[in-house]
Amino acid sequence: MKIQDLIQQIKLKKSFLCIGLDPDVDKMPPHLLKSNNFIFEFNKQIIDATHHLCVAYKPNLAFYEAHGLEGYKALKDTILYLNEKYPEHFTIADAKRGDIGNTSKMYAKAFFEELNFDSITIAPYMGKDSVEPFLTFKNKHCILLALTSNAGSKDFQFLNTEETKTKLFEEVIQTSQTWQNADRLMYVVGATQTEHIQAVRKIIPESFLLVPGVGAQGGSLEEVCKYGLNKNIGLLINSSRGILYASNELNFAEAAAEKALAIQTKMESFL
Amino acid sequence: MKIQDLIQQIKLKKSFLCIGLDPDVDKMPPHLLKSNNFIFEFNKQIIDATHHLCVAYKPNLAFYEAHGLEGYKALKDTILYLNEKYPEHFTIADAKRGDIGNTSKMYAKAFFEELNFDSITIAPYMGKDSVEPFLTFKNKHCILLALTSNAGSKDFQFLNTEETKTKLFEEVIQTSQTWQNADRLMYVVGATQTEHIQAVRKIIPESFLLVPGVGAQGGSLEEVCKYGLNKNIGLLINSSRGILYASNELNFAEAAAEKALAIQTKMESFL
Repeated sequence: MKIQDLIQQIKLKKSFLCIGLDPDVDKMPPHLLKSNNFIFEFNKQIIDATHHLCVAYKPNLAFYEAHGLEGYKALKDTILYLNEKYPEHFTIADAKRGDIGNTSKMYAKAFFEELNFDSITIAPYMGKDSVEPFLTFKNKHCILLALTSNAGSKDFQFLNTEETKTKLFEEVIQTSQTWQNADRLMYVVGATQTEHIQAVRKIIPESFLLVPGVGAQGGSLEEVCKYGLNKNIGLLINSSRGILYASNELNFAEAAAEKALAIQTKMESFL
Repeated sequence: MKIQDLIQQIKLKKSFLCIGLDPDVDKMPPHLLKSNNFIFEFNKQIIDATHHLCVAYKPNLAFYEAHGLEGYKALKDTILYLNEKYPEHFTIADAKRGDIGNTSKMYAKAFFEELNFDSITIAPYMGKDSVEPFLTFKNKHCILLALTSNAGSKDFQFLNTEETKTKLFEEVIQTSQTWQNADRLMYVVGATQTEHIQAVRKIIPESFLLVPGVGAQGGSLEEVCKYGLNKNIGLLINSSRGILYASNELNFAEAAAEKALAIQTKMESFL
């Protein structure tokens, strides 16, 4: 998908909501578990109920891999369903991959060709040649982890570097901007780190940020918007658990749509 | 697998060779491609021909994911085959995963339960709570990326930190040693980085190092052994392409065994 098409969708729907499709058996409506392909069934009902309120869907691979072959099938069914029925939605494989060049090329093939995702999340630790193979695909995007929403982000991402007197996450953003096809890069910046979004925006005023951590993890939508919005919106704010598991009764999809609507309404007020 | 069992195998076989099972269609013997389950067939013949020369097998997930459902099936068949026929071999899922705690738990389930691997490689960028869920499994191991073998390792891993006046890769090793169940940690240190193995050994004299980069990537086995061996050997040296693709004729498995034997013989001379 072209970035312009994503921006257009955001303006049309007055929403920059991304819904994380993280199917967790322990939290799903019990009545669904009897279905043969219950993971896909859950996703399908969530997607059908929420598609008009969001612009992106983000399956996290771990929740599929935990179910082995069945999980992989459900992931494939989900991306096929999205591509066919809602092709205007931006799709994100939240896979946090990254390996030596030869191997990253294989991962790119897996997510951009075998599964037709628009984008994939990537861990930056292995540097340039682990990321560039993902950036060779036209109209595909690579979302680099910069500042994550979890407590462990404090361990390394905030270390100050002697070379440039910046923090590691700033160094990651700065350096990655020099890589080939860097215009296909977006960045993960956690909603729990709002005090640092200004610093991020100084380095990349134009890039899209994927912002997890609103909802269950405690990040503030208002704060993220205050520091993160740019002239093209430039934000995709993700919510997973807060929407998916609003109810585990028969009406779970309606309940999810209500939660999504509440977020979309707030978003509209910030545009 | 218990570390003691791995060490015993190494001493018995006089080998600390790990064979990377990275099936690449472009390099595989063409006659195999007609087979229904050709990825597994390739792996099976390689394993049968080399098992007495190595102590570990390491499938890199990218090479399976690139083939979608068929690839996943081949991976599952491979780990089942290893678990059943060669249970004395240490198995490594080279997956380079890592996510927020809730999600890392799912990945651990995927690799330690759904697929019964002994260990998994993990990227450290997201810190403590992204790694600890993998460390809660008894007799399972987590192999953290410290210093990788690729050119991109120069981008971030060598940055000097103001806080501790050490390089990022040293900081990763040092900090991770304070995490819960750190005795289940091993580390990836590339064979192309031999001048830094001494620094690594100062911090973790006892830990196992998984060393990729000998062979196709140009690392020296002799140099790695000089600085990396410890009283329990403490090394798993990986070769993938150099062994797998020694020939793409009918005799590919024999040719692979010859290459593996040459490495094992060298290893024996260093023990």
